[in-house]
Amino acid sequence: MDRVAELVERRLTALLAPATASPKESHETASPLSEAMRYAALGGGKRLRPFLLIESARLFGVPEQTSLYPACALECIHCYSLVHDDLPAMDDDALRRGRPTVHVAFDEATAILAGDSLLTLAFEIVSGPQSHNDPAIRAELTYLLAQASGWQGMALGQALDLAAEQRPFSLDETRAMQKLKTGALFRFACEAGAVLGCADEPSRTALVRYASAFGQAFQLADDLLDAQGDADAMGKAASKDAERGKATLVGLLGIEGAKGRLAGLVAEAEEALDPFGEQAATLIEAARFVAERRS
Amino acid sequence: MDRVAELVERRLTALLAPATASPKESHETASPLSEAMRYAALGGGKRLRPFLLIESARLFGVPEQTSLYPACALECIHCYSLVHDDLPAMDDDALRRGRPTVHVAFDEATAILAGDSLLTLAFEIVSGPQSHNDPAIRAELTYLLAQASGWQGMALGQALDLAAEQRPFSLDETRAMQKLKTGALFRFACEAGAVLGCADEPSRTALVRYASAFGQAFQLADDLLDAQGDADAMGKAASKDAERGKATLVGLLGIEGAKGRLAGLVAEAEEALDPFGEQAATLIEAARFVAERRS
Repeated sequence: MDRVAELVERRLTALLAPATASPKESHETASPLSEAMRYAALGGGKRLRPFLLIESARLFGVPEQTSLYPACALECIHCYSLVHDDLPAMDDDALRRGRPTVHVAFDEATAILAGDSLLTLAFEIVSGPQSHNDPAIRAELTYLLAQASGWQGMALGQALDLAAEQRPFSLDETRAMQKLKTGALFRFACEAGAVLGCADEPSRTALVRYASAFGQAFQLADDLLDAQGDADAMGKAASKDAERGKATLVGLLGIEGAKGRLAGLVAEAEEALDPFGEQAATLIEAARFVAERRS
Repeated sequence: MDRVAELVERRLTALLAPATASPKESHETASPLSEAMRYAALGGGKRLRPFLLIESARLFGVPEQTSLYPACALECIHCYSLVHDDLPAMDDDALRRGRPTVHVAFDEATAILAGDSLLTLAFEIVSGPQSHNDPAIRAELTYLLAQASGWQGMALGQALDLAAEQRPFSLDETRAMQKLKTGALFRFACEAGAVLGCADEPSRTALVRYASAFGQAFQLADDLLDAQGDADAMGKAASKDAERGKATLVGLLGIEGAKGRLAGLVAEAEEALDPFGEQAATLIEAARFVAERRS
């Protein structure tokens, strides 16, 4: 996973490099936009979504160099969503991964535009001639990525998450929200691997099943960390998300219930990959990793 | 132009239609996201950019039904940029076309997400199978649209426009900013017409030249209306933009200088289309229209 993270970091650094030609040089100095984009996208992150995409594609023998551009595009979408999620009108977070968020380090207008620009850059990367030799694959990946990120995918999930602060969400509603907010990009990661590998329908379905279980496990582990971290510190299960009135499954299932469900999801992720046998070992390990991580 | 606006309105209405399937129905009621997108994108606007795209494509015999999807994608980009430009952290406008802006009619978080979603929808529309039969054309249009809208196109122009509030911009800097902020989408409109029409290089270059003159004329006419409106009302040439410290060419050239330049730009736009002869009459009329409009 570290090696893929390194590859993604290097490629994103190149894609976001400051222009050196003279007319653009002046834009670089006149506006902090590209600096804010680099601040948001480089130097951190597990690059979990690119990892899933590259490893899913590898199941079908697709080399990293071929899956790297779509993987970077996906990471740009993830980074943009964090920048906008952190804005004062959204979650109003001042810190992310121990660093000031983009609107704190720069300003709010720059954070809005840097998020917009990372979102747009994702589509530039995935649709451009360097992304893949076959334009049909570029177009299909672009279309899937837009669907996963947009008004019926991740962005809808973000909107529902905000709505959940206004009134209590049921278990079903919370699951539906999380399936969109965090699940849609994981699903894209695995589906894109299948598209790049020209996979048959059963393989694609298996990967989508894996992605669904993986995404739910990821979110549940996150909620558990949040709840337990606070429980350890304060002697009660009052999480930061719970304080904001955010819908979490831990709040709805309880800590023990959530732990049981998490184990079930990891088993589901493993089972989904049965058809791939030994080749799926890395993806199975990734599911265990996200379920067991302690930070 | 009215007929194209009507076509675009109808297609966008269909593309943004509320989902009727039961699980999505609940999302429709649970979140105002798609309603805010419809509010931002429907029921107004001259649809000037789609018009340019459709008319440019028509020069090469491309039927409206073929150019309509890319045209709607372009309009979604334009609408998203207005929603985000109006935000409190950006231009902080409460009214647009006489209606409350999206963040006023809904709230700021919804406006941010609705803008993000319209931006994403643009790429879904242009890259999707309904957009064009040939995936190579879909991929090329997507790539060009992302370049025109992103960190080296429109979004950079918006960032530079904000920077111009902090310190005076020179004539060259103001032109460079406007070339990006408003020019990039006009350029895409005309270039997309050439791509859809599989135009040869000289035709494409001619259209890009036209788009450049058209975009500058559009912006200059806008600045003149702004300056003269205020001048008429207040007996002096202090515009709303000038008050905000915005860089405008009218501020730098004076009203008479700007009028002279505007006439020159219309002539340039006409000349660029010489190779197309009579067929370009509609596009030439459009250039005259934007230069002479009074509102």
